Amino acid sequence: MSQLCEASGVPVPSIKYYLREGLLPSGERTSANQVDYSDAHVERLHLIRALIDVGGLPVATAGRVLAAVDSPDLPLSYIFGVAQYAISDADLYDELEGPSDGTAIVDETIERMGWKVTDENPGRRGAARILDTYARLGRDELAAIPEGYAKGAELIARADLAAVATTSDVRDMAEIVVVGTVLGDGLVASLRRIAQEHVSNEMFANPRSES
Amino acid sequence: MSQLCEASGVPVPSIKYYLREGLLPSGERTSANQVDYSDAHVERLHLIRALIDVGGLPVATAGRVLAAVDSPDLPLSYIFGVAQYAISDADLYDELEGPSDGTAIVDETIERMGWKVTDENPGRRGAARILDTYARLGRDELAAIPEGYAKGAELIARADLAAVATTSDVRDMAEIVVVGTVLGDGLVASLRRIAQEHVSNEMFANPRSES
Repeated sequence: MSQLCEASGVPVPSIKYYLREGLLPSGERTSANQVDYSDAHVERLHLIRALIDVGGLPVATAGRVLAAVDSPDLPLSYIFGVAQYAISDADLYDELEGPSDGTAIVDETIERMGWKVTDENPGRRGAARILDTYARLGRDELAAIPEGYAKGAELIARADLAAVATTSDVRDMAEIVVVGTVLGDGLVASLRRIAQEHVSNEMFANPRSES
Repeated sequence: MSQLCEASGVPVPSIKYYLREGLLPSGERTSANQVDYSDAHVERLHLIRALIDVGGLPVATAGRVLAAVDSPDLPLSYIFGVAQYAISDADLYDELEGPSDGTAIVDETIERMGWKVTDENPGRRGAARILDTYARLGRDELAAIPEGYAKGAELIARADLAAVATTSDVRDMAEIVVVGTVLGDGLVASLRRIAQEHVSNEMFANPRSES
């Protein structure tokens, strides 16, 4: 175990915790007081830490996400669904309380974009919740889904699926889906920050500040 | 204070906490044991709760964000910057440790897109950190910024700025920037979930399941 700690950079108490919680499979017992860990264990530890440290997932959620990766028998069309449900357990995606204007706006956008999605997609509830919040704050200029948001989301999703299609190994696909969905939200948010500064400078440029 | 609680739906202990932490301005003292609160206080409480409950900000961060909203003297071109710095204090946007291939990929994308942004934009660090993590996980098919991500982010940012441009009141602009940036990340992530399901069905459709 101390060698696994050295190879992975993950402290022994954390390794023990991940073993206990089922995120990391047990090593192979080779004698009474010797357990062998493989390179696969080191890789798995890197994946666990990426989901928790960079993706910001709670340990229990990371466990559910990894369980999805470990279920390669699922039909391909369900891989995204499984990853999304496992990941989307933040309050944002909870069931809404009572009727919601946001839901109608989301449905309209799905219709307009020609998207075919199930009623259970967690993004429906997340988007509706945000729109309802904008409306409650009286921020009517935000309480809609701009065309740029819908088109931008579709461009991003097409890139996501193109990455998945680079492999035909189902376990590999599941890992790309999970890693790309958890960490991809941060990449999208980061690029949005960069593009906002550019567009903001473009629109609100102060001519005097340009030399 | 109990009337403020009733009007806003926010419990008295929370109201006291926000007052103490400076998120909510004090009411007007009208006699020795009477403080008057206005509709502006109710609106402010809704804004505080939206940032914390829906946007997921820690109370201290919400305080910094509201301080940005309360500084309408800032030049317009800096409003986004202030909001972004106040919001982007998650680990994702911290300084990177050591050299980073991700930084080079981010720089290339900024160049290719013709984006003009400062070195201090927090999105640069966030995007580089995610790309470095993909590479460390050996997920080379993800360790790049797909064109769809860059173009999608720009479409979304243009919609963000269009919402800001609906008003010429600087305080209003600041609030749209802050609310739209904090909650907008959740809206983008939600739409990405919806579009992923649609594109995934399109690419990996099982003909038998269609009647």
